[in-house]
Amino acid sequence: MPLGSHTLDEATQLVELGEGWHAGATHAAYANMAGPFGGVTAAALLRAVLVDPRQAGDPIALTVNFCGAIADGDFEIETKLRRSGKITQHWSMELKQQGVVCTTASAVCGARKPVWSHYPIKAPSAPPRGVLHEMSKDARPQWTRRYSFRFVEGGLDNYPRSDGLIHSARTVAYIQDEPERPLDFVSLAALSDAFFVRIMHARGTFQPMATISLTTYFHVGANELDTIGATPLLGEADAAIFHNGFADQSCALWTLDGRLVANGVQITWYKE
Amino acid sequence: MPLGSHTLDEATQLVELGEGWHAGATHAAYANMAGPFGGVTAAALLRAVLVDPRQAGDPIALTVNFCGAIADGDFEIETKLRRSGKITQHWSMELKQQGVVCTTASAVCGARKPVWSHYPIKAPSAPPRGVLHEMSKDARPQWTRRYSFRFVEGGLDNYPRSDGLIHSARTVAYIQDEPERPLDFVSLAALSDAFFVRIMHARGTFQPMATISLTTYFHVGANELDTIGATPLLGEADAAIFHNGFADQSCALWTLDGRLVANGVQITWYKE
Repeated sequence: MPLGSHTLDEATQLVELGEGWHAGATHAAYANMAGPFGGVTAAALLRAVLVDPRQAGDPIALTVNFCGAIADGDFEIETKLRRSGKITQHWSMELKQQGVVCTTASAVCGARKPVWSHYPIKAPSAPPRGVLHEMSKDARPQWTRRYSFRFVEGGLDNYPRSDGLIHSARTVAYIQDEPERPLDFVSLAALSDAFFVRIMHARGTFQPMATISLTTYFHVGANELDTIGATPLLGEADAAIFHNGFADQSCALWTLDGRLVANGVQITWYKE
Repeated sequence: MPLGSHTLDEATQLVELGEGWHAGATHAAYANMAGPFGGVTAAALLRAVLVDPRQAGDPIALTVNFCGAIADGDFEIETKLRRSGKITQHWSMELKQQGVVCTTASAVCGARKPVWSHYPIKAPSAPPRGVLHEMSKDARPQWTRRYSFRFVEGGLDNYPRSDGLIHSARTVAYIQDEPERPLDFVSLAALSDAFFVRIMHARGTFQPMATISLTTYFHVGANELDTIGATPLLGEADAAIFHNGFADQSCALWTLDGRLVANGVQITWYKE
C-alpha cells in the first residue's frame, strides 16, 4: 500500500497552521479506554517534528509526557526547535486542546555516521511467528485492532484473571501494524507504546491505569528503515517495580533477523 | 552533616529571580571534561522544580536533554508548570546561558499512595562493599572525586585500554556521594548519571562522547528517603546497542537491602 493511505497516517495527519504549529485530530480507529492510544499521540508529536522544514537528521530520542486526558476531536501541536548543532537537534513539543496542555514532549534528532557499531544485547529467543495464534481483540479497545499481537510468553488470553496470583510482568511477542505498513519513525513511536501496561500481566486486575511518561530511543536510520520495509517485530516488555501507585516498564523491538530498532521505558500509574 | 552544606548542595544552589525563574552557576567541584558533569545539571533542574512553591507530590520522572555545552559560570533555569491534576504535575524546564538554551527538561511529580506494590526485579548479587577497592581518581575529571565508586564488575582500572578487545558494557558497582550525604531526589538525579558512558567500558577507547538525553524514574517517596538516609547504593549499568554514533544506556540503583530507588536510561553520542 502506498505510504499515507494507512490508518496510522490518517490518525497522525497534520495540517500546517504556521511555523511549528499544526492541527490534528483524534481518530476513532485508535481509541483507547479513555481518549486515544498513547502510541498514536506519540506518533503525531514526532510527525510534527518530521514534517517541519527545519528538521534534519534521524530521530534519536522521543519523550512524551501524558499530562491529561485528550478528548475526542481536534488538537493543535506546537513544535519549537530549541537548539540545533552539528550533531543534534533538540525539539520541544506540546499538544493542546482549547488552549489546555494535554501532552508535552521532546525529541532529539541526530546525524548518524557509519562509525564503529556493536550490538551486545541479543533478541529473546522465540518460535517462528507462524506457529503462534493471534491475540483475540474481543472486548478490547479499538486501537488493539490496528495491531497484530502474537505472544511468545506473557500473553493476555486470560485477562482479567481471577486466580489471584501474581504472574511475570514480562512479555515477548511479535507485533505489527495491521494492515501491514512499512516501518518508519512514526510507526516505531506508536509501536513503542503498544505493549500493554505491565500491571495487566503481573496482577491481572482490571482497574484505572495509565502511561504517565514514555521515552523511546530509535536505533536505525531512515535509510535502514527503507530497507527493512514492512515486517513483524519481535518485542520484549518488562517491569522492575510497582510501588505505591507507579510502575516502570521497559520495551525493546527487534527485526526478525535480530536487529534492535528501538527500545525505551515508560512510567505508569495505577490506582489501587 | 546538615543538609545544605554538602558540595552537591552548593553546586545546585538556586537563587529565585521570579516565579519559575532561578539563577545558578556551575561549580568547579563537578567539572567534567568539557562543562559540568551531566548529573549535577540534572540535579539543578530538578531542584528548580522542588523549590517551587507550586510543587506537590514526589518526583516520579525526570528527562534531561543536553542540547549544547554549558560554559563555566552563571546560568538561569526557567520552570513552567504545564499541567497540574489530582494525581500528577507536569513541569517543563530550560537551562539557559546568555539567553541560549543549553538544556531542556521535563519532570513529573505524583501523589504516591500506599497501594498494592510488587518488586519483581531483584538487585544484582555482589560481595560486601568492604572487600572492594575504591576506583582511583587519578587523571579523571573533578566530578568523579565527588563520588565513591567500588566496582563489582565492569570497572575502569584499565582505561583507556590497549588490548583492542571489546569487553562487556555492563557494570555493577557500589556508588555513594563523597563525602556521604543523605539521599534525596537531588542526589538521586545526579547519581542516575554517575555511571560512565558505556563505550568506555565496552570499547575502552578515549574519544569524544557525551550524554544526549537522560531519563530517570524515581521509585521512592520523600518519606522513604528520609528513612534511608545516607547509604551507598548498589548500581547496575548496561548498554544494548552502539550504532552509527549513538548508544543507549540503562541504569538501576538499589539500597543495600535490595530496594530499587531509581532506574532509567540515557542515549549517548560517540564520535567514531
